Amino acid sequence: MATAYSTLPTVGVVGGSGYTGGEVLRRLAHHRGVRPRYALSRSAAGSATPVSGLAFESADADRVAEADLVFLCLPHGETAPWVAAAQAGGSRVIDLTADHRPGSGAESDAVYGLTEWNDVAKADLVANPGCYPTGVLTALKPLEAAGAISEGVVSIHAASGVSGAGRSPRADLLFGEVTGDFRAYGLGNGHRHLKEMRAALPGTELLFVPHLLPVERGILETITLPVAPGVDAATVRELWATRYAGSPVIRVLEEAPTLRQVARSDLLLLSAFDNAGLPGHLTLVVAFDNLGKGAAGQAIQNLNQMIGAPADEGLLCVPS
Amino acid sequence: MATAYSTLPTVGVVGGSGYTGGEVLRRLAHHRGVRPRYALSRSAAGSATPVSGLAFESADADRVAEADLVFLCLPHGETAPWVAAAQAGGSRVIDLTADHRPGSGAESDAVYGLTEWNDVAKADLVANPGCYPTGVLTALKPLEAAGAISEGVVSIHAASGVSGAGRSPRADLLFGEVTGDFRAYGLGNGHRHLKEMRAALPGTELLFVPHLLPVERGILETITLPVAPGVDAATVRELWATRYAGSPVIRVLEEAPTLRQVARSDLLLLSAFDNAGLPGHLTLVVAFDNLGKGAAGQAIQNLNQMIGAPADEGLLCVPS
Amino acid sequence: MATAYSTLPTVGVVGGSGYTGGEVLRRLAHHRGVRPRYALSRSAAGSATPVSGLAFESADADRVAEADLVFLCLPHGETAPWVAAAQAGGSRVIDLTADHRPGSGAESDAVYGLTEWNDVAKADLVANPGCYPTGVLTALKPLEAAGAISEGVVSIHAASGVSGAGRSPRADLLFGEVTGDFRAYGLGNGHRHLKEMRAALPGTELLFVPHLLPVERGILETITLPVAPGVDAATVRELWATRYAGSPVIRVLEEAPTLRQVARSDLLLLSAFDNAGLPGHLTLVVAFDNLGKGAAGQAIQNLNQMIGAPADEGLLCVPS
Amino acid sequence: MATAYSTLPTVGVVGGSGYTGGEVLRRLAHHRGVRPRYALSRSAAGSATPVSGLAFESADADRVAEADLVFLCLPHGETAPWVAAAQAGGSRVIDLTADHRPGSGAESDAVYGLTEWNDVAKADLVANPGCYPTGVLTALKPLEAAGAISEGVVSIHAASGVSGAGRSPRADLLFGEVTGDFRAYGLGNGHRHLKEMRAALPGTELLFVPHLLPVERGILETITLPVAPGVDAATVRELWATRYAGSPVIRVLEEAPTLRQVARSDLLLLSAFDNAGLPGHLTLVVAFDNLGKGAAGQAIQNLNQMIGAPADEGLLCVPS
Repeated sequence: MATAYSTLPTVGVVGGSGYTGGEVLRRLAHHRGVRPRYALSRSAAGSATPVSGLAFESADADRVAEADLVFLCLPHGETAPWVAAAQAGGSRVIDLTADHRPGSGAESDAVYGLTEWNDVAKADLVANPGCYPTGVLTALKPLEAAGAISEGVVSIHAASGVSGAGRSPRADLLFGEVTGDFRAYGLGNGHRHLKEMRAALPGTELLFVPHLLPVERGILETITLPVAPGVDAATVRELWATRYAGSPVIRVLEEAPTLRQVARSDLLLLSAFDNAGLPGHLTLVVAFDNLGKGAAGQAIQNLNQMIGAPADEGLLCVPS
Repeated sequence: MATAYSTLPTVGVVGGSGYTGGEVLRRLAHHRGVRPRYALSRSAAGSATPVSGLAFESADADRVAEADLVFLCLPHGETAPWVAAAQAGGSRVIDLTADHRPGSGAESDAVYGLTEWNDVAKADLVANPGCYPTGVLTALKPLEAAGAISEGVVSIHAASGVSGAGRSPRADLLFGEVTGDFRAYGLGNGHRHLKEMRAALPGTELLFVPHLLPVERGILETITLPVAPGVDAATVRELWATRYAGSPVIRVLEEAPTLRQVARSDLLLLSAFDNAGLPGHLTLVVAFDNLGKGAAGQAIQNLNQMIGAPADEGLLCVPS
Repeated sequence: MATAYSTLPTVGVVGGSGYTGGEVLRRLAHHRGVRPRYALSRSAAGSATPVSGLAFESADADRVAEADLVFLCLPHGETAPWVAAAQAGGSRVIDLTADHRPGSGAESDAVYGLTEWNDVAKADLVANPGCYPTGVLTALKPLEAAGAISEGVVSIHAASGVSGAGRSPRADLLFGEVTGDFRAYGLGNGHRHLKEMRAALPGTELLFVPHLLPVERGILETITLPVAPGVDAATVRELWATRYAGSPVIRVLEEAPTLRQVARSDLLLLSAFDNAGLPGHLTLVVAFDNLGKGAAGQAIQNLNQMIGAPADEGLLCVPS
Repeated sequence: MATAYSTLPTVGVVGGSGYTGGEVLRRLAHHRGVRPRYALSRSAAGSATPVSGLAFESADADRVAEADLVFLCLPHGETAPWVAAAQAGGSRVIDLTADHRPGSGAESDAVYGLTEWNDVAKADLVANPGCYPTGVLTALKPLEAAGAISEGVVSIHAASGVSGAGRSPRADLLFGEVTGDFRAYGLGNGHRHLKEMRAALPGTELLFVPHLLPVERGILETITLPVAPGVDAATVRELWATRYAGSPVIRVLEEAPTLRQVARSDLLLLSAFDNAGLPGHLTLVVAFDNLGKGAAGQAIQNLNQMIGAPADEGLLCVPS
């Protein structure tokens, strides 16, 4: 950024004390293209944020317009007054909740912020994608675009760390209940994220089963799908490599990625495998951090597009 | 058992210091239908076993015939001399390795010990099933027998605790590498257990992806499959309930089972779900302990059939 | 028990849906000296208990007197009406809360149920000891009795699994907050359990620091203390071995015990070590399950004394 | 660093594929005051390092002198030929092994690199401190210097994550053995690190019990000690705050720090507490990452002193 500091755009975070808000603030703390102006939180007002010199303040909608761009890290369903205040005050919005995503039923002029697919440079309201859909869509959209997916069911088995469920106290998420456990949930194809995936992949039959892992962070998605004649794992890797050559966070591997390779980073790793004895069916394995590329990392990618910053500014591209 | 103690059959365990052998011995410790005679181990000779008054002794094939029935808990590929010694001495064998299972390529007169499906009462050599196949076959065989599975691919996503990989030192199984991780392995449909499943379900197209969980014990299998017209989740639950009414360990649930509900027990829990927007496709969730119904528990079930003991003798039917 | 079933004493559990109540019920399920009559719970009424044929019922104090003996597994501070109802109806009580323990400030005629030290055979109200004190007192009381502890501070560093904190939702006990963590708490020597220890060891200066472990079950206590001239680790092991020869659960080891050796059992393991370069100071390491010997296991030991059952009836003496 | 890139000192890492070497390389990857020249590893030659453009090369002592300064991240006892090669070639050395530390028995002119206490600006050979001693000495040295420690035993109970034991395969460090466990080790006051602590605190009687935690990273040390009349927790906090005001990584808290507050960072957090009923005895709680301030972070602090870089260059001061 050649821009002098005093002219950098200002940003604010609303709902900064949850896992997602905290990760946005951690990235803003070393982002060289913005000036953090406020971090609002109902529960944490007065305590420090990861941004040097910035403390949490109480959640007051009058504050929104003090920043050129605001990240909404609220519970789902609570964004309406904040979006209204932002629009009234001329602030742009990156909404990390489900409120404006495809399939949510909401009517809005939000742009869906799947960064590598949609241009949000001019958007005033960006709907940051859900965590599970980010991996599924990143893996499948290049195949769909190339006509590589054949008729039949795409079976998505996904597993997420507990941070995907947030920080509110719940008996079933206590350490004593999650350690040693592994559970499927949202059975019957009824998870909210499936609607989002279907809206973005309308021509494909999707079956989606999410699971809860006894780990803090990360999502691994194992996808089995029927492919068109002539399509094999090498074809898929080639389609991905071409499509994502410019992405600062998406990488194509020969081996299957594991959760620890992406934890605490903004990386998303892709791999594809043929199946012995089952020509015409591939297995894809996708790994990323639900709070990274699945939330805050992608929000920062969208920020970078919106303000014209370098694509990798503020991102965490090494797992720790 | 009305039999007097002195006439109870004698049993021995070869390879008792691994996870599987240890679990067999724990069950034998309170089994009221047998007299434990020996526990042989290369590495643990001299140390105590879970059976009161029984210490590990060195692994000497001459000892085999001292017991009426012997459990082989060895590394795969090492059973040949022990089976030969047992047969020469007139001892019956329950082999917990992969050496005599269907699909192993071995020619033998072993009976496949999937307890609820095959009668091992008269068998001299029982091939105890692999852990992953136990859950898959228990779930699918009643459906196959009823013609409930339609043409198409059955997609099996399975996840196992680390005890399934045994107790030998491996850098990739160190605590520091497994904690916080989740990995797919055996990609490309090449896992040994898949051959066993295919041999037992020859008319079905199977796609199998195993994963490694950061937990000690348990397997959860999430299976998506195409079903014949008119078949729904309720049909499947009914087929299972009828077929397994007499089993001491298999239970059918309305809700999806979780790993903690089966850990350290011999239970196997089954559940089935319809999928909104995808008529004709069901999701099955199966949970059991890889060392319980997936190994030692099923070996004890087979023992009970072979010696005419009550079906539930020695089993652990409450998770802890 | 040679007694015919119909004449066995009846028992009830109040507050059976927490961790402690559940463990009492698991032991009662296979206890051959009592007939479980009821299990009362505010939150779990209607659901099954570990005792075959017994479902949870709503928490109604009128029910107490239906059993000859009742286990109180309630939150601390809530026992008064239940004890009153029991006494009015002639039922004996084992109170697993802190309400009647030494140092609690309560005046009562409760007998302190540190099983190997106090005779509860005739008691009508037994105060079951706290988890931390059980290990500390078991280790130190034989030394104090023998005059083996020298003047100076006994420093107790203890670490417990999360089940010690119960099952109520708390944000700081979520899996995402406990995994990877280790914390000291109750700093400043202010933990309630310290009062209990001091009351039972009045002549000793105790410094107590508890810690929270990222494990489900178990307590490890590492105690450093000044000893009288001539006392060394061997002396201590001998004192323990003599004092606890008759206990079904206390064992003296040469090596330091670890948490996994006691998890899910009622065992308590003791070890003692000299310190190179520091004559006159020993280190003791004590391990047991906070829900076993630290709660439900000791309650069952007390039950056995009260009803004249064998000392090991219903106990779990093999870790799993 | 105003210096032009071409004149920055060059650095190399020997033994870069273990946990410690990897953490040094991660910090060098974003250090603005050096040019990484090589990373040598017996086992990882050919694979990528965290430093962009730098691959591991085979471990050849002829390479040492290509860098102005070399980090030795070898197994203990293997540094001699590397130090000799460095000295012959005029390279300075930061040795992260135990080989040249106080109490190791080695005679050498190494400077002990406890950064906040010793000046290594001119040193040619720096002995980077052990992990456990780093926390203990940081906490106690200001007290000893002020005469605040009274006669008697200082009792140090420490617990470390498994990364402290390195990455070599060991059966007792498998996930299946460590999960759910907590163990004391090095009992009898015989741990190598105790010699190092005693050498650096010669006037103090130390009792040291290390434990192994089921976590990946971090050390928590809980220290109880007798203090001089008039010394209380506030005094200690004041001594620390004054002594460490200039440190980029040491901070004094009012509350006890936890492991998650320091994991994956170079921070070291200090806290002190009075004990009710025990005047004259304090409890100190210290937390830091064994691979951060306990190894690689302190090595980078030493590097910064040796090359005149800013004190916080390359350090990780936010936990993740």
